Amino acid sequence: MIDKIKIIEAYNFRHACKVFDTNKKISDADFSFILETARLSPSSFGFEPWKFLVVQNKDLRDKLKLITWGAQGTLPTASHFVVILARKQKAMKYDSQYIKHMMEDVHRLTDDVIQKRRGFVKTFQESDFNLIESERAMFDWASKQTYIALANMMTSAAMINIDSCPIEGYKAKEMEKLMTDDFGIDHTEYGVTCMVAFGYRIDKQRNKTRQDTDEIIQWFN
Amino acid sequence: MIDKIKIIEAYNFRHACKVFDTNKKISDADFSFILETARLSPSSFGFEPWKFLVVQNKDLRDKLKLITWGAQGTLPTASHFVVILARKQKAMKYDSQYIKHMMEDVHRLTDDVIQKRRGFVKTFQESDFNLIESERAMFDWASKQTYIALANMMTSAAMINIDSCPIEGYKAKEMEKLMTDDFGIDHTEYGVTCMVAFGYRIDKQRNKTRQDTDEIIQWFN
Repeated sequence: MIDKIKIIEAYNFRHACKVFDTNKKISDADFSFILETARLSPSSFGFEPWKFLVVQNKDLRDKLKLITWGAQGTLPTASHFVVILARKQKAMKYDSQYIKHMMEDVHRLTDDVIQKRRGFVKTFQESDFNLIESERAMFDWASKQTYIALANMMTSAAMINIDSCPIEGYKAKEMEKLMTDDFGIDHTEYGVTCMVAFGYRIDKQRNKTRQDTDEIIQWFN
Repeated sequence: MIDKIKIIEAYNFRHACKVFDTNKKISDADFSFILETARLSPSSFGFEPWKFLVVQNKDLRDKLKLITWGAQGTLPTASHFVVILARKQKAMKYDSQYIKHMMEDVHRLTDDVIQKRRGFVKTFQESDFNLIESERAMFDWASKQTYIALANMMTSAAMINIDSCPIEGYKAKEMEKLMTDDFGIDHTEYGVTCMVAFGYRIDKQRNKTRQDTDEIIQWFN
């Protein structure tokens, strides 16, 4: 049980921190903790369709900076910089080798449960949302799961007074090429969904703006 | 600053709780707190493209249950049940009235900043990711943001020992009709992205399964 006031303080502490203090480095223990909250994140059917690249190499950051307009201030200053990947259709389709691996080796389900669950995934992907017919829709479904891990990393960082900045702004085609050529990522398996930089703020936080509660919440009693 | 061990405990406490104890109700203060962590969540360009429907009415829950195979145990037993909506292309396009409203009235940006930022959004939606040409891709982009709020609600709930279950499994077409007919939601403005149920567990939690750290994290030093 954690104090609600402290939790809300952390949510208010978190903001899109555009530049970090280059004199301050996140400790290994703290960064392992942040990654662990990504690993423990939930995902649809528990398929964990993600991968996290921690980019500390200066040359790679420089190359990322050329095509990532949303991280001009954070790439050169972040203590830790993470590129988040999601798995593509090849892995996410209900009858894929990856799904089989997850259900057999990670979830350790029995054969009859696997068969039943695969049926649910098939219905979900075919009938309910027609993810099968579109490489993009299937990837977006996997990508949504990565935003859960993204959120948890930013939240857990804020709870130990570490700043962060989520990044969606980059050139998609150039990113695919960079991932293939310089990161050794198979673009038929994975695509970039977003990025997130971590470090310690150097500037004062701006006032947080949000819509009012009654603009975004509707009760049906 | 919150204790890391306590935070990890909360991430381990959270699991997809399929049935809740109907004798236990979440207090108004606790549920307001959970909603507040949704409201404070970040989103792309700060556009907050979400709406949260808190469905407490029994008739509406019964109707949802007929088309939501992923919530058969939670809809009848949840203390609080939330349907999460995302805004559609009409609102999310860079030159929409809604984006204008967000930048002018919520972010309170000056005219020149608004013009500049709209240019970024245009580039992002047109050149970088071609969201403009597909109603679905634009909606999925908005939906991704709602998964940040979803994650934060589940995490903050777990931190005060409240259980939750995220739900993606429902019949999409029937859901659109139900939202229009019974919830008064304009389906040209909003679509359902997912749901999340809250309450207190009645069954023991299963062991958590996850891929190992080195399967999902890669360092580039």
